[in-house]
Amino acid sequence: MAQGQKQKSKNIDNTGFGANSAVEGGRLVNADGSINLKKVGMPFWQRISVYHSLLRMKAGRFFLSIMLFYTAINVFFASVYYLIGVQHLSGIDTSKSTFEEITAAFFFSSQTLTTVGYGHVAPNGLLTNIVASTESLLGILAFAVVTGLIYGRFSRPKAYLLFSNNMLIAPYKEGRALMIRIATYKNNHLTDVDAQLTVALHLKDDNGQHITRFYPLPLEISKLSSLALSWTLVHAISEDSPLASYTEDDFANNKIEVLVYLRAFDDHFSNTVQQRTSYTHHQLVYGARFLPMFGQSSDGSFTVLSLDKINAHQKVA
Amino acid sequence: MAQGQKQKSKNIDNTGFGANSAVEGGRLVNADGSINLKKVGMPFWQRISVYHSLLRMKAGRFFLSIMLFYTAINVFFASVYYLIGVQHLSGIDTSKSTFEEITAAFFFSSQTLTTVGYGHVAPNGLLTNIVASTESLLGILAFAVVTGLIYGRFSRPKAYLLFSNNMLIAPYKEGRALMIRIATYKNNHLTDVDAQLTVALHLKDDNGQHITRFYPLPLEISKLSSLALSWTLVHAISEDSPLASYTEDDFANNKIEVLVYLRAFDDHFSNTVQQRTSYTHHQLVYGARFLPMFGQSSDGSFTVLSLDKINAHQKVA
Amino acid sequence: MAQGQKQKSKNIDNTGFGANSAVEGGRLVNADGSINLKKVGMPFWQRISVYHSLLRMKAGRFFLSIMLFYTAINVFFASVYYLIGVQHLSGIDTSKSTFEEITAAFFFSSQTLTTVGYGHVAPNGLLTNIVASTESLLGILAFAVVTGLIYGRFSRPKAYLLFSNNMLIAPYKEGRALMIRIATYKNNHLTDVDAQLTVALHLKDDNGQHITRFYPLPLEISKLSSLALSWTLVHAISEDSPLASYTEDDFANNKIEVLVYLRAFDDHFSNTVQQRTSYTHHQLVYGARFLPMFGQSSDGSFTVLSLDKINAHQKVA
Amino acid sequence: MAQGQKQKSKNIDNTGFGANSAVEGGRLVNADGSINLKKVGMPFWQRISVYHSLLRMKAGRFFLSIMLFYTAINVFFASVYYLIGVQHLSGIDTSKSTFEEITAAFFFSSQTLTTVGYGHVAPNGLLTNIVASTESLLGILAFAVVTGLIYGRFSRPKAYLLFSNNMLIAPYKEGRALMIRIATYKNNHLTDVDAQLTVALHLKDDNGQHITRFYPLPLEISKLSSLALSWTLVHAISEDSPLASYTEDDFANNKIEVLVYLRAFDDHFSNTVQQRTSYTHHQLVYGARFLPMFGQSSDGSFTVLSLDKINAHQKVA
Repeated sequence: MAQGQKQKSKNIDNTGFGANSAVEGGRLVNADGSINLKKVGMPFWQRISVYHSLLRMKAGRFFLSIMLFYTAINVFFASVYYLIGVQHLSGIDTSKSTFEEITAAFFFSSQTLTTVGYGHVAPNGLLTNIVASTESLLGILAFAVVTGLIYGRFSRPKAYLLFSNNMLIAPYKEGRALMIRIATYKNNHLTDVDAQLTVALHLKDDNGQHITRFYPLPLEISKLSSLALSWTLVHAISEDSPLASYTEDDFANNKIEVLVYLRAFDDHFSNTVQQRTSYTHHQLVYGARFLPMFGQSSDGSFTVLSLDKINAHQKVA
Repeated sequence: MAQGQKQKSKNIDNTGFGANSAVEGGRLVNADGSINLKKVGMPFWQRISVYHSLLRMKAGRFFLSIMLFYTAINVFFASVYYLIGVQHLSGIDTSKSTFEEITAAFFFSSQTLTTVGYGHVAPNGLLTNIVASTESLLGILAFAVVTGLIYGRFSRPKAYLLFSNNMLIAPYKEGRALMIRIATYKNNHLTDVDAQLTVALHLKDDNGQHITRFYPLPLEISKLSSLALSWTLVHAISEDSPLASYTEDDFANNKIEVLVYLRAFDDHFSNTVQQRTSYTHHQLVYGARFLPMFGQSSDGSFTVLSLDKINAHQKVA
Repeated sequence: MAQGQKQKSKNIDNTGFGANSAVEGGRLVNADGSINLKKVGMPFWQRISVYHSLLRMKAGRFFLSIMLFYTAINVFFASVYYLIGVQHLSGIDTSKSTFEEITAAFFFSSQTLTTVGYGHVAPNGLLTNIVASTESLLGILAFAVVTGLIYGRFSRPKAYLLFSNNMLIAPYKEGRALMIRIATYKNNHLTDVDAQLTVALHLKDDNGQHITRFYPLPLEISKLSSLALSWTLVHAISEDSPLASYTEDDFANNKIEVLVYLRAFDDHFSNTVQQRTSYTHHQLVYGARFLPMFGQSSDGSFTVLSLDKINAHQKVA
Repeated sequence: MAQGQKQKSKNIDNTGFGANSAVEGGRLVNADGSINLKKVGMPFWQRISVYHSLLRMKAGRFFLSIMLFYTAINVFFASVYYLIGVQHLSGIDTSKSTFEEITAAFFFSSQTLTTVGYGHVAPNGLLTNIVASTESLLGILAFAVVTGLIYGRFSRPKAYLLFSNNMLIAPYKEGRALMIRIATYKNNHLTDVDAQLTVALHLKDDNGQHITRFYPLPLEISKLSSLALSWTLVHAISEDSPLASYTEDDFANNKIEVLVYLRAFDDHFSNTVQQRTSYTHHQLVYGARFLPMFGQSSDGSFTVLSLDKINAHQKVA
């Protein structure tokens, strides 16, 4: 077993994870790149950034939240108008039922909030006018917030990177290499792409305590001018590699975790983008090789990149 | 022929293009800087970024798209109002023809969507009110999107670089040099400008297979403090150059492609901008020299840069 | 006393603070990172950036400012409408009292400014129409400003860093070290974190004049790939340290100030963020050690970071 | 005279200015940092970036442009409504004069464009409805543009740097130094400030032709961690300096131009900012020294920076 052996490469201590952050059955980094961590000791609303949570929310949920928020505000203001008295909303037929009065107040509220203000219903009396005036200001502020959120959602730099589901241990030159494949899946273009692999080994120290050690996994090519096609990250398992002594069984039995970090300049956003992910030993396939995922078009005038083949691999003898 | 010869300079493998991405009759990078590539294997809408496509769309097409979208939404809501019944739009003369009822519903819809809400037509009845209330919210959200898009279009960093149409092989010092000329054509200013030339040579390997090899073309000056005037990129074809052995015929017969990459800081946008382009052998002119494109103003108080002379060149003996 | 002693490390003169900027009883940098400085010699409005002041204002004050501004503009326009004559606002009952006429003008103004425009009150006559037309334009411009401000407030990159209240002198290896602890308290993530400590020593020169000297305090780890958990900044007080000769009494009696500067890439904002703070000798605790602030969750599947323990420390013998 | 002498330092050719861009009586860079250059050979509207010109326009002119634009659009649409026939604007008194009809159409147009839509005047008939519907869309798009412009104006990174009006040749250590003083004049804060001085010497070559040569002027401190107070840029005129042989007369008689370039990270904008300026020999003062511009407050608790003393200097013997 590899755990007891001396490592030739030096472990690194500036990953931001502690030696004792090792967790049984857990992982350090989730597949989506977030840290497998919970912060406590501060109220929830101080611990989250509402703005960024709304930016990262799925589009459907985001739209639903706005709809609910819109309804809630209108319910609130409808109640206020009703309490003041619907006779102060000229144009409303006050001989109707309470339900109809409240719905009328609701729709007057929505016409005020969105500033559509048809005017077939209009405020009269000091109090109702003050509330309506405040509501229309609030409406404009709320939609300023929404405009900001929507722009923020659109313009948030994202790397749009596709990762292979598995990391492979493939034959490479005269030895073996650990391989992960990536590609951009949108019509964006990354330049000056930097990739870093770090392996976390969960070891036992001399006292039998679980400790975590981090080692860099140097890549054959770690910096690409331009991510035009796909890119296979290759860590050659040379004798200096922290994985040098790992046999197929070691890979199967040890809880290694490979942290992947990519950083590039995206010319869609004209900004730096980055993406993290992590592979656990469950995702490791031993003795396999990625199949090509690009080739020439039938008329030879351009290159074709098949995104569905990002994880295509084949067992090798 | 140059193809069979040994190269003194070392080829590079971090361009992001594969050795076998060579395509007969095609090119790697298009003149507008995009990669000559098609991605497949994912649904279209997952492969494109709608936001960025709208940012890059020509202004006319962008405006037309908005007009069409606006009309389509109004047609949809007009249909809904008509189906509920135009008698729920008080103010509409319901004794008119169906066409006139539908157009009235259409214009009510547009007044609701834009929140202009004159009010000479106004919703009555629960259903129509709900639809109108939803439409006005939708209108505000849609225009939040449009505001974001318009701001995004304006503020998207662009290099505004003009390239010469041709690359020249010109006499230089005691030998020859490959030359390309650039200038900024707007009232913007680039600082810390970096230029990189890479040549792609489409060769045959020992088995007669087409392979592509990439070589950097070092520049006499590759970094400029400030792109004040025009800049002629000069690669001296010394004996270390990958093009050292190329004769006039070689340049005419071999499908070389020169990839140009520029990166700078733009003080209009206070952001990094970059631009790529590529020259194929069709654009190469052998034995020519660029003519000057700037000089003093007639009163000697400022410099004049003639943008129409960016490609001006002259055959030399 | 340490002041008279020779320093082994070299002082630095590019901190931006002068040698004679030392102030009795004052500090160079405030806890919030701002410079303890007042600029004079220019009118106030030229010395501040209104936009950035509004961006940094507390949310409550910001909202209040908008409310006040909104009221002020409406008061102004109500006065103008009243001076022109409320009979030019058709729909207002001009048989009412002056107060009621003015409030009616006020609410007409607010309906115009927010573009809600119910229309039960509407302008007639050239002058009133011109004013109303101008006011609605102004309203749209004002809310464009507000939209920009609100987006600017949201999207302003902030580091969301929590600092320990105290800096500790703790036992470290065979000697002592100065320690400060930081953590991110929101759901943001910092990568490529750089930390710099600089100490300002207020000394007396040979003539008994107060002078300030700055020395870098090298850190055991000064660059972190990722600020996943908490980070204890450790300056080992080796014999090369500018604090090498400081005894517990020296730390108590000398007005040292430790300037802390952090810079990182935040993937919430996809932007560089930075934060400064400063510790004075009042915040120094001698002979104490930070207590751990993270550990495993009870089921071992993730790590728990307790933000309320950021300053938790314990006296050591 | 210094012109004929050999320079010990090497001239640089990557300034972006050509050797023959020297102009009699002109300068290379204007005081506001723009290049003293005119571009021709392309239509005006292709040569300017409208967006950025609007961003840099003075606030007053910007506001005036919007007012004019607003009026022009309303005049246009008023004409259209008038041509279609004001009887299609229900609510307008068609028994009035042409002038009154046109102004009524104008105000209806403004109510549509701003989406205030009171509704006391409302469109009827297909054509008028189509025009009004289009105008309200246009209004929303126009104000999306304005929102973008206003946000762009606010958020455009600027360095807010104040420069001394003069550059001084002051006694320094055992020799002389060229000095320029800068300070930030707003409540912003610059970190990692880089400064570069380059001198342009307009010389005569062996054939009596005017040529321009550029030399870097190394600074005693060229990088500041933080621009907290003021900063005096000091180029010591050592024997390696391109100005080593210049006497007081040489400085008075030779058309030297000193190009100043600053680059920093601004934590107001969380962005890189830069500023250029240039000093001509007219701004040089020989044998003077800057007077201090900061000191302690009267109670000693903070530092006071007097911006009005930025250029304060004193002749020295």
